[in-house]
Amino acid sequence: MIQESDLIASDILYEWLLRRGDTALILGHRVSEWCGHAPVLEEDIALANIALDLIGQARLWLGYAGEVEDKGRGENELAFLRDAWDFRNVLLAEQPNGDFGKTLMRQFLIDAWQDALLSALKTSANERIAEIAVKAGKEVTYHLDRSSDLVIRLGDGTQESHRRMQAALDALWPYAGEMFSADAVDEAMAAAGLAPNPQTLRPGWDETVGEVFKQATLTQPQSDFAHKGGLTGRHSEHLGHLLSEMQFLQRAYPGAAW
Amino acid sequence: MIQESDLIASDILYEWLLRRGDTALILGHRVSEWCGHAPVLEEDIALANIALDLIGQARLWLGYAGEVEDKGRGENELAFLRDAWDFRNVLLAEQPNGDFGKTLMRQFLIDAWQDALLSALKTSANERIAEIAVKAGKEVTYHLDRSSDLVIRLGDGTQESHRRMQAALDALWPYAGEMFSADAVDEAMAAAGLAPNPQTLRPGWDETVGEVFKQATLTQPQSDFAHKGGLTGRHSEHLGHLLSEMQFLQRAYPGAAW
Repeated sequence: MIQESDLIASDILYEWLLRRGDTALILGHRVSEWCGHAPVLEEDIALANIALDLIGQARLWLGYAGEVEDKGRGENELAFLRDAWDFRNVLLAEQPNGDFGKTLMRQFLIDAWQDALLSALKTSANERIAEIAVKAGKEVTYHLDRSSDLVIRLGDGTQESHRRMQAALDALWPYAGEMFSADAVDEAMAAAGLAPNPQTLRPGWDETVGEVFKQATLTQPQSDFAHKGGLTGRHSEHLGHLLSEMQFLQRAYPGAAW
Repeated sequence: MIQESDLIASDILYEWLLRRGDTALILGHRVSEWCGHAPVLEEDIALANIALDLIGQARLWLGYAGEVEDKGRGENELAFLRDAWDFRNVLLAEQPNGDFGKTLMRQFLIDAWQDALLSALKTSANERIAEIAVKAGKEVTYHLDRSSDLVIRLGDGTQESHRRMQAALDALWPYAGEMFSADAVDEAMAAAGLAPNPQTLRPGWDETVGEVFKQATLTQPQSDFAHKGGLTGRHSEHLGHLLSEMQFLQRAYPGAAW
């Protein structure tokens, strides 16, 4: 069912909101997997808090997506009762945690992108989007401060910590490009003044991460190759496994509530 | 609902059948996780076949368990719609695969026990149990031949293969004792002539595995400590994760059929 909102077809807005909500949700779930397993207690608590921020952000986007869809699905139905092909997160968010360095690098690449995106969304012509961007943006700016700092400390740290951070960067770099890809959904959102075209965020992001990598003595890969598919529902093998765990409770006990 | 069968209360028989079916099912699922990942193609196919044998064996036990329970649940409902605390497999079966050596050692320890148990069950006073034991016993005898042979070849192989097999034996040994533990269910089954008391299987098993370890130049741990709980529904953290994957399809698409 397609409805017209003030500025854009609701199915386009819905699709765009899922991309925001699913990326925050899936990254948040991944980060939550560290709970009880982080290398030191302070990191364990920090990671759990970041996971909670991201899941909180996901609730805002998915709650709004459910209203826009107007089929009676709320944040919970969208999070726990869709299968992999209906998820719209970027592939980078669903990549496995690996070691602490890989988790941190994944977080940094996404933090820098989310920070730029949410900053731009604060002036969205859609008030609801602007409100979410203001709220989530404060948290993400803090996430970026923290991950930048740690990438520098570990990249420019011991021989072993440097080796791990470089390996993480090399492994994850091919997933960065998808965050800046644009399709008809993005172009429609941009044309309506609701969101920036993702491509316009790339130069600022390149500058942000480039400066951090320089301080971290890390070598930025030169390849432009970018895996794509997450934003349109074609996911890596990892998402299904993640969902089978994340959704178990609602799948096994439908409608269960605290 | 408790019904009397010819020789024993149905709730006792049901509980005992779950222990057989769940151990075969969970081990079969674990082995199936190797599909597409084994070190060489021949092993990949062999492991997939062993997994299928075990899942086939599970179907027989669970199908019968469903009839005995008499609540309208068949093999599929019992396999896919129970949660962790209702499973009755030994803890050894649910332990993670680890490397090929650990998977092989787990298989060998269980094969030697299943072979002894099924041999004894061929003379069960319950015809249905005896039939299943004859059918499954042929396959398990082959499994034991194969795993014995491989444990010897890798234990008495290279320095690295020996190291891995010894590490696997040391890690899994504390899970062996549960297979020979006996409680009121086992005692009632034994008293009715339906199954051996598991304790009586231990000396023969000790002889079987002891001879193989000797040929494999592996050192059998001396500890008698045994983790317990699986047979009464108290499982390790690993079972829930396994079930979330194994049951996803039936949980997400209730009643789905091929």
